[in-house]
Amino acid sequence: METRITLVGAGPGDEELITLKGLRALEQADVILYDDLANQELLRYAPAGTMKQYVGKRVGRPSFSQEEINALLVSLAKQYGHVVRLKGGDSYVFGRGHEEYVYAREHGIDCQIIPGISSCIAVPASQHIPVTRRGVSESFWVITGTTRHGELSKDLKLALQSKATVVVLMGLQKIQELCQLYIDHGRGEIPMAVIQNGTRPDERCVMGQVWEMPERVAAHGLGAPAVLVIGEVVTLHPAYIRECLAAVSCE
Amino acid sequence: METRITLVGAGPGDEELITLKGLRALEQADVILYDDLANQELLRYAPAGTMKQYVGKRVGRPSFSQEEINALLVSLAKQYGHVVRLKGGDSYVFGRGHEEYVYAREHGIDCQIIPGISSCIAVPASQHIPVTRRGVSESFWVITGTTRHGELSKDLKLALQSKATVVVLMGLQKIQELCQLYIDHGRGEIPMAVIQNGTRPDERCVMGQVWEMPERVAAHGLGAPAVLVIGEVVTLHPAYIRECLAAVSCE
Repeated sequence: METRITLVGAGPGDEELITLKGLRALEQADVILYDDLANQELLRYAPAGTMKQYVGKRVGRPSFSQEEINALLVSLAKQYGHVVRLKGGDSYVFGRGHEEYVYAREHGIDCQIIPGISSCIAVPASQHIPVTRRGVSESFWVITGTTRHGELSKDLKLALQSKATVVVLMGLQKIQELCQLYIDHGRGEIPMAVIQNGTRPDERCVMGQVWEMPERVAAHGLGAPAVLVIGEVVTLHPAYIRECLAAVSCE
Repeated sequence: METRITLVGAGPGDEELITLKGLRALEQADVILYDDLANQELLRYAPAGTMKQYVGKRVGRPSFSQEEINALLVSLAKQYGHVVRLKGGDSYVFGRGHEEYVYAREHGIDCQIIPGISSCIAVPASQHIPVTRRGVSESFWVITGTTRHGELSKDLKLALQSKATVVVLMGLQKIQELCQLYIDHGRGEIPMAVIQNGTRPDERCVMGQVWEMPERVAAHGLGAPAVLVIGEVVTLHPAYIRECLAAVSCE
């Protein structure tokens, strides 16, 4: 029996956005550990008899701690062979994939990583907002809204001074604080988009200027998972001008 | 006949890193326009009879201007039906995919975008360098080394003051200037990796501190395409300590 672990990025939501390589790993899985952001339709690519274990959050509470997931990965690999860890987006972008990789290696288990389409690029693209565009933005900065200690990332104060497109993942709960930071630095008029459920059939997008976005997002009832995009590239959205004049959302 | 254009991201090199959705577009292509960074093995997924047109660079010179590519996309769609534009990485990251999308729309042609795995995340990951890691880096900044006017992006001066992982695409030709900028700002001792041909069988990686990297990269003869990664996360590479002590590369 071949004992190994494969970390597979499931992509941002649309199940067809998994890679061919990720799919092949699923087809050869003895066990799959998956969580909420991975499209669960992907589980049907596993062979009959593959054990599928949910390790996500139930009613906002983790069903397993990271330490428990690490231990599960290793013990299941030793017991059953090939364990696939299926995670939303990409395992190395604000995931704890690297911790799982290190733990597996420390326990002598071969561990491969297969990247996934990250929502930081693909979700804006799904609304035809490119994170870079010649003459508009020559860089993009990807930040988490939720740091280990719960506060906004300090990197944001530098980011908002730059001309980079700023993409915030897991930031919806901090939108008020985030937008206030821009306003306090005289940057409240930058265009911004909030996109919920990007690349899924129920994708929704609300746009406006930073100062008005907390209210708009609340008025439209947007919830997590959501990607926040801040920068001039948002004006490239086909409906930006129309929406900002009409103050309606493009759903 | 259905007239349409699909922009497909081919991913960073490994042909299995295309998405299932991208593959299905190739399987339904009447024409494919492709360039250098897209793995050309992917062309065999096209049906027999699909016209394949190379639009990349020959001996460093573009074979077609962007304006010519735009015009080709539209005229071939009108003539043959479904045109797939296959580009390396992701079409909306320092590609000109968005310009192609806008041109197609202006000419009344339906245009869909299918994201690709971007080398900015997947190439570091291929060396087990995560662009973010709890307690080490809570953001990453992706910059092009090659701006429209040929100079280094001004965003770099802000980026190097931050704790963000900085990822530079298309930056190898500017490595001397780039590293000097870090040294001038007292940041010459930050860990850095340069990865050539990431995710391909001939992938190579050279690591060290910023101040010594231009010389190291030259000594190892690394060439384009290469991804530059600068930040503390580079020390997470399984061989970082060993390599920096031994001053050898991990190929």
